[in-house]
Amino acid sequence: MADFQTIGKSHIRVDALEKVTGKATYVGDVYLPGMLMCKLLTSTHSHARIKSIDTSAAEALPGVRCVIIGKDYPDAWFGSGAMKDRRVMARDEVFYIGEPVAAVAADDEITALEAVELIKVEYEGIKNVVDPLEAISGRSVDVHPNLEDFEGFGFALGGNNCTMLDADRGDVDQGFKDSDVIVEETYHTQPISQGFLEPMACVADLQANGRLDIYASTQGPYQVRAQLASVLDRPISNIKVTAMEMGGGFGAKLRLALEAFPALLSIKTGRPVKLINTREEAFTLNGPRLETNIYLKTGVTKDGKILAREARSIFDVGAYLGAGPNAGVGHGLGAYSIPNFKLRSYGVYTNKIYVGSYRASGVADMTFATESHTDVIAHKLGMDPMEFRIKNALSEGDMAVNGSAIPKNGLMETMLALKEKMGLPKKLEEGRGVGISVGEWRSGSGPSTAAISVNEDGTISLLTGSVDISGSDTSLAQIAAEALGLRLDQVVVAARNTDMAPFTGPSGGSRIVYSQGRAVQNAAEDAKAKLLELAADRLGVPADALECAGGAVYVQDNPPQSMNLGQLARMSLSSRGGPIIGTASLSSLPYAPVFNAQGAEVIVDQETGQVRVTRFVQAQDIGKAINPMGVEGQLEGGAVQGIGRALSEEILIDKETGKVRNPSLATYLMPLSVDVPEIENILVEVPSADGPFGARAVAESPGFGPPAAIANAIYDAVGVRIKTLPLSAERVLAAIQGRTEDEYTVDADELRKAEAT
Amino acid sequence: MADFQTIGKSHIRVDALEKVTGKATYVGDVYLPGMLMCKLLTSTHSHARIKSIDTSAAEALPGVRCVIIGKDYPDAWFGSGAMKDRRVMARDEVFYIGEPVAAVAADDEITALEAVELIKVEYEGIKNVVDPLEAISGRSVDVHPNLEDFEGFGFALGGNNCTMLDADRGDVDQGFKDSDVIVEETYHTQPISQGFLEPMACVADLQANGRLDIYASTQGPYQVRAQLASVLDRPISNIKVTAMEMGGGFGAKLRLALEAFPALLSIKTGRPVKLINTREEAFTLNGPRLETNIYLKTGVTKDGKILAREARSIFDVGAYLGAGPNAGVGHGLGAYSIPNFKLRSYGVYTNKIYVGSYRASGVADMTFATESHTDVIAHKLGMDPMEFRIKNALSEGDMAVNGSAIPKNGLMETMLALKEKMGLPKKLEEGRGVGISVGEWRSGSGPSTAAISVNEDGTISLLTGSVDISGSDTSLAQIAAEALGLRLDQVVVAARNTDMAPFTGPSGGSRIVYSQGRAVQNAAEDAKAKLLELAADRLGVPADALECAGGAVYVQDNPPQSMNLGQLARMSLSSRGGPIIGTASLSSLPYAPVFNAQGAEVIVDQETGQVRVTRFVQAQDIGKAINPMGVEGQLEGGAVQGIGRALSEEILIDKETGKVRNPSLATYLMPLSVDVPEIENILVEVPSADGPFGARAVAESPGFGPPAAIANAIYDAVGVRIKTLPLSAERVLAAIQGRTEDEYTVDADELRKAEAT
Repeated sequence: MADFQTIGKSHIRVDALEKVTGKATYVGDVYLPGMLMCKLLTSTHSHARIKSIDTSAAEALPGVRCVIIGKDYPDAWFGSGAMKDRRVMARDEVFYIGEPVAAVAADDEITALEAVELIKVEYEGIKNVVDPLEAISGRSVDVHPNLEDFEGFGFALGGNNCTMLDADRGDVDQGFKDSDVIVEETYHTQPISQGFLEPMACVADLQANGRLDIYASTQGPYQVRAQLASVLDRPISNIKVTAMEMGGGFGAKLRLALEAFPALLSIKTGRPVKLINTREEAFTLNGPRLETNIYLKTGVTKDGKILAREARSIFDVGAYLGAGPNAGVGHGLGAYSIPNFKLRSYGVYTNKIYVGSYRASGVADMTFATESHTDVIAHKLGMDPMEFRIKNALSEGDMAVNGSAIPKNGLMETMLALKEKMGLPKKLEEGRGVGISVGEWRSGSGPSTAAISVNEDGTISLLTGSVDISGSDTSLAQIAAEALGLRLDQVVVAARNTDMAPFTGPSGGSRIVYSQGRAVQNAAEDAKAKLLELAADRLGVPADALECAGGAVYVQDNPPQSMNLGQLARMSLSSRGGPIIGTASLSSLPYAPVFNAQGAEVIVDQETGQVRVTRFVQAQDIGKAINPMGVEGQLEGGAVQGIGRALSEEILIDKETGKVRNPSLATYLMPLSVDVPEIENILVEVPSADGPFGARAVAESPGFGPPAAIANAIYDAVGVRIKTLPLSAERVLAAIQGRTEDEYTVDADELRKAEAT
Repeated sequence: MADFQTIGKSHIRVDALEKVTGKATYVGDVYLPGMLMCKLLTSTHSHARIKSIDTSAAEALPGVRCVIIGKDYPDAWFGSGAMKDRRVMARDEVFYIGEPVAAVAADDEITALEAVELIKVEYEGIKNVVDPLEAISGRSVDVHPNLEDFEGFGFALGGNNCTMLDADRGDVDQGFKDSDVIVEETYHTQPISQGFLEPMACVADLQANGRLDIYASTQGPYQVRAQLASVLDRPISNIKVTAMEMGGGFGAKLRLALEAFPALLSIKTGRPVKLINTREEAFTLNGPRLETNIYLKTGVTKDGKILAREARSIFDVGAYLGAGPNAGVGHGLGAYSIPNFKLRSYGVYTNKIYVGSYRASGVADMTFATESHTDVIAHKLGMDPMEFRIKNALSEGDMAVNGSAIPKNGLMETMLALKEKMGLPKKLEEGRGVGISVGEWRSGSGPSTAAISVNEDGTISLLTGSVDISGSDTSLAQIAAEALGLRLDQVVVAARNTDMAPFTGPSGGSRIVYSQGRAVQNAAEDAKAKLLELAADRLGVPADALECAGGAVYVQDNPPQSMNLGQLARMSLSSRGGPIIGTASLSSLPYAPVFNAQGAEVIVDQETGQVRVTRFVQAQDIGKAINPMGVEGQLEGGAVQGIGRALSEEILIDKETGKVRNPSLATYLMPLSVDVPEIENILVEVPSADGPFGARAVAESPGFGPPAAIANAIYDAVGVRIKTLPLSAERVLAAIQGRTEDEYTVDADELRKAEAT
């Protein structure tokens, strides 16, 4: 193993000082001359036709500069990828309570709010459907009856089932026949918010040349640019998106959200327009997650080998398909080798807020189900849950769900590390329990670009199109520094916008360090090759006799014979090749799985049902820790989000109207520091073949396991199995007292029948 | 010749709308929270030791945040290139009236001004020298007695002669012996200002992470960055320079000027600091031009062949060598083939404002001398001035002063075009005259980089590090569009700073369209090759069977078989090669000469000496006009500056103290629209081998010829030869009346003797 200088060591984030001193600039900090404030009017009906909108009183209010309604936008549809199922602002119908119906730009926020209240909308109600199990039954109203003919939609079951994904292998019926034990269950997960601190925000500023400058809080500036171009019917080159500092995204800020409202208002007024969502809007407009119902059927031999699985997952997507139900298929097997399977995943429209992405959308839901289920099976077989998992774990060469071969990985190492650290198996005293969960994910890929220029003093500037949502700029700078033999403080990460940096995929899907990091490494290698070539020419030795380190290029056999990068960079300014630029562009890297194992110890108060997590340990194969402190931060943040998902977080939705009942951080219960134990992290490093210096993704996986680990620990502590999230005190107490908990049933037979027709 | 789509057609500037609507952002428009205003205290002595500086009263003034003096800077020297002859702020001595001695940052401008007046400086005067001929004589005080040992300085003649350049060929003594006629003269040119509208300005803003953000009005952001790093003793990577919109530079803004003052004040206060020079400071702090005395001796045969030339030019550089006397050697021959020559050029320190660059520093001075001299010789031989020039003109294959071979060029075409357009030779009525001048220059080179990314709709973003001082962004965008078969409106030129764009040489020296344009073309070709490769793969044809045009790649033999660039760009996002980026980096391009011929018709009022230019015609070989409207604008602007230099512009300098007597646009007489006739332009297009699409430089040459053309026309009109600029009414009238005009004599014998010792 090479002796690394910059990577593998903990560094404070390159943007730490800006952030802790409050100097970092968020959208909220953008003030432009003549800037107007924007406010939104949203739908009060979950399903209705808009008969009329009267904006005259609002427009007459002094200080109001412009009021827009859906008809002011070009007649364009947008959505997620090819699935275009909505207008940017409601036009003839509304599909959920909270849907934008009009927007106002005024001289100040108060005036804008007053104007919003003066807009009169006349609705004609339509029957709605709120429950996804009812919506998919074929017995309810259709949310979008006219979408069936649209390209990209797969209304396999008709009605509200907008998309169905499947994956099959082997002979699942035979697998069940050959099984000694079959376990069949349904799990249910709750609507949940990404819980970002900074609500979405945007300033749009029409330039004199007709171009639109957009300052956005976004993970995907190029995605916002493309979607905005589409809904405003302008060329992409007409829009510049500057991704500002972000106060959290977690997937919620991957795509166009509120940007189209200030954008059109700026176009109409010629003035800069700012919109900052309220906290309520952060719950209703930004694509949180909705409920999932997951049916699992698994057949095992009595000595603990899994032979067959059927999984059917119903993802409530709300009014629009903001993020697909991919996880229902991709993660229906967990980290196990299962020879026969039949996986189905359904997306279902309902008249509710639409779903977006959240830290590997749906995978945490699936993992709660599959890893609770795994525990149930192990107990049924009388096997230790960890041994059962080890027995069925995927190995190198096994086939992943998508058919690709599993490459070398650290799954076994993470399980063994967790086992050792927690001293498993172990039995705790009455009321205390231990539970585990194993997760599987992959290092994300997608379009990644980087450019490096070498300054005349041997320092470098790094230009990428990726937004830093997790400390990734620091890792990218470390990768560039390592590849060129520089210190971290010799790397400048340039602030960027879509004009100047080449297209880069969004910061999401666990792709930045793995793919963007690889692009940075390649760009650095490109620059390095040019530096070595220059030095070779000057030192009179072949380039392959040279190496880069300590800010210099030296002859490997005679290190004192060297030139520093500053000398070389200055030379380059008058060399034939010109100033040294290294660039790289790549799209997809080979599949690099990410496995983790997480364990929780809990105390269950048997009189109240209250669950307290007393210990949380996690081991994750991160390939190579570029910035260990950053990796631990990611692991801990993910675990804490997972604990919140497990115990307390839930968007409460009215069963009749679909209205969000708790759009506030006072009533939406995110974990506080007292709710979370110190997280113990074990970094397993089995290098990936293609990540920079062997790194794998870190970001999303740590959020997967806590719900199942905690549910399994509750079972271990008090013998009750909770299959519905969150694992609230009420629910646990009800189970302890033998009362029926909430019942959610996926009728698998009916789904099979519907598919067959 | 290819049929061009975008180049060769006139386009309004890509930044035109921003500028005419007042939306373009200049440094003066930068307002940052908590920003302080800076004012300077400057020296009242032309040569003195600083005994003490008392800043206590200034510091005690409410609202004053910081006062800095020279000792607050690291003990570093800076200057032009290797010639480091000054401190950024006077430390122990002052060398001219107007030199910065202290700077104040205060809450507002008035307070800063009051504080400046409260600073007490005690000076001890030292004898000064103001006249450059006295300064080089060896009989005056030395301005910088301690610089002789510094690297880079060539005190060939000792004393104040800080640098001497030479060029020799053949046997000049024999050349003179073989000549039938020898003409020996001295010419004198005046101190002159670049006359930019926007005074220098800077905002410096220390970031929380210790980096310095600099917003500057500069032609050379990378040069400012490097020099600032040096005088502040910080790494280059610690500084980001954003080049804002510019209100004119003309060479004055190529290097570090005032930026170091707000920079240090921002470092000391932690606040943003703005400094905008006054108009007075624009004359004294920004490196205008000082006087030049040029001795010429030329030997010719009686049939008009030039055999030998000796030229000795003395460039007054003032207190510091801001720009060298290169033109005295490089342009001592004019556009003529002269077999034997001996060229010497001296830089001389005096206690005056220091020289900077101005639209090919010194070449206009040399051209006034050599092209007046050429006229004198032609008249002495009884030859038509144009025929004499044609007879001696450089041809392809001749050797340039620097020994390189003259490539194919349009010198002859420009002369013949001018001759035809003006109907030469011709004799006008008494009091009216016609005169011509021929100029030679080169297309500039130096570090040039560009990057192009192809957007998903087939439009492109162009990133360069070059500042647009002349409409060059429009030309660069046209070049990129042409190379990729796009419309101009499909190209975005990204705003840039030194963090994000790779190193690029300054916007000066006639290098942007020629060299930077070539880099842009190369980057576009790089992107095009990747587009063709992708398309070849998809269309199943070899890449060389494809061509790019009309926003698409098509099969040359079957144009309907095509893919548009948007499709290809979207494909690239998931292709192996990733998003399409084209990059290019180059340093020096081969020598591409630029020749022009200019002619003036004048009326001389024989009672007042007033000269009025009634017609001005110019022909220039621009290789290929990328944007003809822009080329004409450059040609006209240069001609007008040349007419100002010829007739009225002069910085008046006190002969005792070196003080600038007219630092104001009311007393420094730039030409008004009534002073200038319509300029008639002839674009000669003899393509260069290496410029983009054959383009040559345009920018600097048109300023060279007007003084000689007008002086020659005055001679033609009234028979008097004025050898001193400006050709003011007083001077012309004195000559008409037979009175002695100002006498400037370069004692060539003495210089020859001094060199020999």
